Amino acid sequence: MGYHPINFSEKLSKFTDRWSPKVISEMNDYQFKLVKVEGNFMWHEHQNTDEVFVVLEGALTIEFRDGAVTLSKGEMFVVPKGVEHKPFAEKECHIMLVEPKGVVNTGDAEDDLTAENDVWI
Amino acid sequence: MGYHPINFSEKLSKFTDRWSPKVISEMNDYQFKLVKVEGNFMWHEHQNTDEVFVVLEGALTIEFRDGAVTLSKGEMFVVPKGVEHKPFAEKECHIMLVEPKGVVNTGDAEDDLTAENDVWI
Repeated sequence: MGYHPINFSEKLSKFTDRWSPKVISEMNDYQFKLVKVEGNFMWHEHQNTDEVFVVLEGALTIEFRDGAVTLSKGEMFVVPKGVEHKPFAEKECHIMLVEPKGVVNTGDAEDDLTAENDVWI
Repeated sequence: MGYHPINFSEKLSKFTDRWSPKVISEMNDYQFKLVKVEGNFMWHEHQNTDEVFVVLEGALTIEFRDGAVTLSKGEMFVVPKGVEHKPFAEKECHIMLVEPKGVVNTGDAEDDLTAENDVWI
């Protein structure tokens, strides 16, 4: 039987669009997604789940109503459920997200930025 | 309020023991753990959960009864629940594990390699 690693760089080379997470694997009922971001996202929250951000390349700032955190390559952060946040990247940044299957990128808000869900690469 | 990134290198600098996962964060009822490995681990399985391996440094081979996969830095693999596997690293390798809180490193087998669970750094 063939077993194959999931290579982040190879997966990242397969798309160029921004703010549109692509699923690369599942564990139990969770998904691992890659996303390229640049500029401002919108304020949103996820009422039912925490959300993990891992920066693979570049830097990402996550703004909160009462502060902010900036993540560089090799760093992660867990946004607690129900907490409003707004991602921002001055330059293109590559991120891995971990969240339950079915989570929409804009959370409880619907917007032009709402991406199609469960898109695999 | 202060928000702080979780830096993998900084966390890895805090321990030297092998095959003993350290928790660095939680999301919902899942944990993210770092572990340093070298040499052979034991055959084991996790009956109730998939297990995610992400290689941060070095290379890891995961043997299965019918094959194997080798992961390098920047690669991940999901071992399905119930599947026997045996990790092996020729040289020291640094890994991030993602699995539900409470999962024991040796799965259903108890051994000298069974590590204390839920150790945070």
